[in-house]
This record gives sequence, structure tokens and C-alpha cells, in this order.
Amino acid sequence: MPEFLKLIAVERALQTLLASMQVKVLPERVKTLNSLGRVTTESICSPIPLPTFPRSTVDGYAVRAADTFGASESLPAYLRVIGEILMGNSPGFDINPGEAGLIHTGGMLPESCNAVVMLEYTQQVGADTVEILRSVAVGENIIKVGEDVQVGEEVIPAGRRIRPAEIGGLAALGILELNVAKKPVVGILSSGDEVIPPEGKLLPGQVRDINSYSLSALIEQAGGIARRYGIFPDQLDVIEANCARALKECDVLVITAGSSASARDLTARVINNLGSPGVLVHGVNIKPGKPTILAMCNHKVVIGLPGNPVSALVIAGLFVVPVVESLLGIPEVSVRRKLPARLSTNISSLAGREDWVAARLYENPDGYQVDPIFSKSNLIFSLVRANSMIRVPADATGISAGEIVDVYLLT
Amino acid sequence: MPEFLKLIAVERALQTLLASMQVKVLPERVKTLNSLGRVTTESICSPIPLPTFPRSTVDGYAVRAADTFGASESLPAYLRVIGEILMGNSPGFDINPGEAGLIHTGGMLPESCNAVVMLEYTQQVGADTVEILRSVAVGENIIKVGEDVQVGEEVIPAGRRIRPAEIGGLAALGILELNVAKKPVVGILSSGDEVIPPEGKLLPGQVRDINSYSLSALIEQAGGIARRYGIFPDQLDVIEANCARALKECDVLVITAGSSASARDLTARVINNLGSPGVLVHGVNIKPGKPTILAMCNHKVVIGLPGNPVSALVIAGLFVVPVVESLLGIPEVSVRRKLPARLSTNISSLAGREDWVAARLYENPDGYQVDPIFSKSNLIFSLVRANSMIRVPADATGISAGEIVDVYLLT
Repeated sequence: MPEFLKLIAVERALQTLLASMQVKVLPERVKTLNSLGRVTTESICSPIPLPTFPRSTVDGYAVRAADTFGASESLPAYLRVIGEILMGNSPGFDINPGEAGLIHTGGMLPESCNAVVMLEYTQQVGADTVEILRSVAVGENIIKVGEDVQVGEEVIPAGRRIRPAEIGGLAALGILELNVAKKPVVGILSSGDEVIPPEGKLLPGQVRDINSYSLSALIEQAGGIARRYGIFPDQLDVIEANCARALKECDVLVITAGSSASARDLTARVINNLGSPGVLVHGVNIKPGKPTILAMCNHKVVIGLPGNPVSALVIAGLFVVPVVESLLGIPEVSVRRKLPARLSTNISSLAGREDWVAARLYENPDGYQVDPIFSKSNLIFSLVRANSMIRVPADATGISAGEIVDVYLLT
Repeated sequence: MPEFLKLIAVERALQTLLASMQVKVLPERVKTLNSLGRVTTESICSPIPLPTFPRSTVDGYAVRAADTFGASESLPAYLRVIGEILMGNSPGFDINPGEAGLIHTGGMLPESCNAVVMLEYTQQVGADTVEILRSVAVGENIIKVGEDVQVGEEVIPAGRRIRPAEIGGLAALGILELNVAKKPVVGILSSGDEVIPPEGKLLPGQVRDINSYSLSALIEQAGGIARRYGIFPDQLDVIEANCARALKECDVLVITAGSSASARDLTARVINNLGSPGVLVHGVNIKPGKPTILAMCNHKVVIGLPGNPVSALVIAGLFVVPVVESLLGIPEVSVRRKLPARLSTNISSLAGREDWVAARLYENPDGYQVDPIFSKSNLIFSLVRANSMIRVPADATGISAGEIVDVYLLT
């Protein structure tokens, strides 16, 4: 297998690919309400301070703090209640020394107030007097203007994937629309003389196309648009013509080859003919997925995935997803959802090769435990039965039961 | 605050609510291709075995294993090559003793073959003879019929959220449609005299509605449909009439009250008037979110969330999301994405109260580290700035810097 003479490590392969990309994120305008999961293309700054007025954080009496100094249960301060501050209104009055105003949580503080005494520490006496049973410090139980956000402050950076909290924050600021990255279009081509569409009736020797469908779902999950071009026979001219067409229409091209060595060679040849510089990485030191091809053709990423459905899905998670995220303008993921778990059974592995093993993760009183799902070959239902994958690092020669391993949840 | 006399623990509050639900999951039929993130309502069994024919897992020669026994580089076995098995076809010939057939990865084994010799351990000599340089055991380098999945075997259980791997697996089986749970409809009502819609112009004392929008996004993320009913003034009859209408139209009702004590009392009264048995839990031992109300009105879940946007989002994550998942038929989540991380700064906490603190999680060479984001009150942008929440268990009286805490990623 001459093509695998120069196997390179997973991380280096990914860096090689990402470094060769010239990412130009194109924005589109969407309503804030429809922006969940989309990615900002520019920094968003606040047009207003939040809160826009000084607010009480409790139910109680708005006061001048100095009027409460020294107050206690045995020696209360007495203040004149001059009114109630209604929710959603400006107070309509100010507080002079010796005065207080009834206020509710979230209510607007009169201008001269600098603290609120909680209702629990007050006692109404008569119609317009309140006993203050505890002193409050300046600033106690209030939020100042701009304490959450200042005018002009960056509230959301570029490259942020919008979550429910961002949608709420934008609503608070009255920002009803924003620019998000256009979804990159990822073309998927399957090849293999043995592969038929899922709706087809199987003849002996034939298998149904899995990769076009599992990869479409993965790409959509990552924030891209998957465009399936169908299944092509293992013929250079046919694959090449369809790849050329797809490359024009898409931002990224993913080719899942048949699994025989000749089909894999075909993919490499097709990719090198598609555009320059062509194949950057052919063969990655990983199991499953060694025959992976990473390429750049006319400024577009082209990835040749192994035909085996488990390999294809694992490798797509490691290479296609980061490419989609990069095209969305997401900075390199700082926190992957890696969980440390205790391994239940020995795993063997070759030194120098990164292994990914389907697994079932569960929690027991001592923490996470993980059972590897061994399966002779990489069968798709080993992934369906799994809720996670164990990563065996390249420098390990197997891992013993009882050791702690890195586990990644499958979603 | 008499309503909080009986604060109960988070986990017990949730169990009380879930136990009172009579879940009846309604199915709808969707195409496999459109089922990502949906939840199965029934167990799916395989109509066929996978693979459907015995396959080679390597490129090489299909043989009878016995013909290779004792073969080595110094003493090869010689077999007659009687043909090539083309991909996607039945072999068209069988292998007699002393014979071999050229086969590719994924190719169909002739009936009498029980092993494949990898190409690397063979040497073609002449037109129709191959040297076998290593012996193979019975079953070596082949996958038997049904080795991934047997006919009739359950491949996907009921209550499973469909991931890319399931979509691939269903494609492999030719299953083009499946039954998934109808999305539960969650009605959201906001109340508060101070609250205006995001598109409104703020007058002094007013704030924009955050909760209707952040909660909608959270509910959609969980697999529900959010229906926003708008903002209502703090008047019993108005809120009650609109809640009654919403409860008829929805599967779950979420009310986010104004944040003053009187507004909270109003919500509890409205809920008790909506239907029996009414309020089950009023007040949960958690910060933020103590004034949470959990209720069941005429067999539908009604949840009263605190008006504070951070409290509302945190509490919705802890109570509304599990209710939506329960209505989708998802069994109780066994693995939450809890990451253990080293705390960078002391956190104080009351014993007996569960605290959730917005935080920034990051990885350093020693593992995960987490910085709590302290903010005087629960301001929405503290969540926007966070990538995670730290859970301080109820039995802790604060946690010291350097200790390991449970961190949940915000998505």
C-alpha cells in the first residue's frame, strides 16, 4: 500500500487542512428569534446600558442609606413613606432625607436613593411611617444602570454559536435581527459498484448506501447544508465529471469511496485531477479511517472518506465537522465534551496509531464507567448501540481495565 | 414569605412533578432522512440480516481455510485462481479444494469459502496461480451474514433520539420512514406590568421581555414546539383567562411571572384556579430560582418560573426540559454531560441549598479548570458570557478553590 507510506497523526492532519483554508465567512441577515444554532459574523455591541434605570433587586423600601445607619431591632430608624413605586413606571417622586418609598423587585429607584431595605427588615407603623430594623450600605439591594452591560460594550463576539441565553440577551437589548454566517454547502458523493440507494431492492453482493445519509445528518448537525449527489460506479471519468460539477456548486466536497484499495486509489486520482494543489494528506494514523484523504482543490476543501460506514462517520466527525465550523467562523473549539471515565475492559492498540472505539458510557456511584463495544469489523450498528467513543491516544499501546480514558459522547 | 416555608430539594421536586405526569406519547410518521433529533415511539426491528451476504473485510483471496494450513513464506501453499469476484455481484462460481478467488473489501464470498487471505500475504505466480504465504483461520477476514444485525433483532429502542448513526443504520436496512413522537407544544406566558416586547421603545421603569424568547429557544432545542402567548399585566382575571386558553391549546404551560412577591403570589393563585390538583411544589431549595412553582392542572404540567431571566433559564433547564423529554418518551437521562473541573476561586453557598453558578470552563494541561462568573444579581449577560454552569450540591457549604466541581456545559 504505497499510498500509506506517509501516514500522519490526526491532529497534524487536521492542522494541515485548516491551515490551507482561506476562510471568508459570508453573512446573512436573520431574525434573532430564528438564530438559534447560527453563528455570528460580527461582534455585537450594546446600543443601550442594561439595566437602563437603577433597579431594586428585592421587595422593600427605597431609601438614602445614610438614613438607616445605626438602625437595629432595638433601635429602629423611622422614615416617612411618601409613596409606592409602581412596576413599569418612573417613581414620580424623589426621596428626601428621612423619607422612604415602597418598591418592588425590579422597580425603578427614585433619583436620590442609593439602597433598598428588604421588606423583612421593616415594619409599617401607622399610615405613612416605616420602622427600619437593620442598616443598609450604599448600593445594597440595587443594580446600577449599566451594571449588566454598558453602552457600546461587546455583548456577543463574532464566531459565537447562538444559544438560548444569547437570544434572551438580544431581546433585552431590542436587537431584533443579526448577521450570521451563511451555512456552508457540503456536497456528498458516494461511489462503489456494490452500493445502491436505501429504497432499492438488494441483489446478492449489493449493500445500501449508508454514508450519504449519516453524513448528511452530521453535516446538518454541525450547521452546514448537505447536498447529496448520489451514487456513482467506480469509473474515473464518471466520478470525475460529477465531482467537478459538485465542486462548483458546493463549498466543501466529501467523497465516500468504495472500500476496496482500487476504489480508494480512484478517489485520490479524481481529487488530484479536480484542482490544485490537490491531495494534502493521504492516509492518517488512525483506526478506523486510515485511508482518509484531505485535499484542497481550487480553494475548496475536498475530503475522501473511507467507504466503511463507521470509519466514514468517525472521520467526518474529526475532519468534516471542524471544516464546517471553520467556514462558519467558529474559532477552534476550546472545550470538547470529553468525559473522563474508568475503562471496564482492556483495549489493545498499536503504538503510534490513534484508535477510536465505540463504547457505552454510564454513571455509577464512583463516577463514569465505560464499556468498549468490540465488533470484529466496523459495523454501523456498533455505533447505533454506542452512546460514546473512547479515544486511545497514539502514544498508548493499549489501555488496561481500571484506567481512566477520554470519552466523547455521540450526539 | 409564607409560600416558601416548605422549600423542597431540586431532585425531589422534579421527581414529584414527573411522577404526577401521565405520559401518552403520540406518534407521527416521518421520513428517516428528516428524523434527526426526533424520538422513536416504538422499538424498530430489522427486516433483514446485516450483512445480507458473507463479505470480505480485506482485499485478497477467498479460500477454504484448510487449504492454507501450514503455509509460510518458506513453504507457501499454491492455489489455483479461478476468477475475480466483482463488487456488487454474486461470485458466479464456487471454490473447490485447492482453489482461490480474487476478492475486494466488501465483496461477496463464494459459498464454500470460510476465510480470506490478505493480498499482502500472497504472491501471484503465473496467470492462474497464487502463492499463499501465511495460513488463515476459519472466519478470518470475513463478516458472516447477520454479524452486525440478525433478522428480527431490535436495532433501535423506543425513546431513542435519532442521531446520524441511526439514520445511517436505517438506510442500511432500507427503512425509509419511522414513527417518532409528536413534538409537545409548550405555551409561554409572560406577566409583569414592567415588561414590554423586544421591539418596543423603553419608557423609564420598563424592561424588554427576555424570558419568552430565551425559553422558546430552550424548548425548541429540547425537541418541543414553543408557542408564545405574549405579555400580560399583573391582573388575576387577565392572566387567568389567557392561561386557561393556552392550557387548552398546549401540552405544557410555562408562566414567567413578574419578579415582585405580589406577582409571584398571583401566579400561584392563577395556577390553582386553572385545574386540579394545581400546585404541587411551591418553592425549591435552589439559587437562583427559589420561587419556582410546579403544578399539574387537568393532567397538564404547568410551571411557574421566576421572572428573573437567569433564574427562568436555569430553572427551565432543570424542570421544563425534563418534562419535554418525558413527553417525547425519552427514558430518564442516564448520562448528563457533567464535566469534572478544578475550581479557580472559592464559592460560598448555604448548606441545604443547591446553587448553580455561571462559569467559564477551559482546558489546561492538568485537565479542566473553571472560573465562576460572579455577578451581583442574576443578569442575563452573565449567562451570555458563560459557557457552563457549576452545580454546588445542597450538602455543601461553599467550595474551596482547587476542589473538583461538577460543571455542565451550556449549549
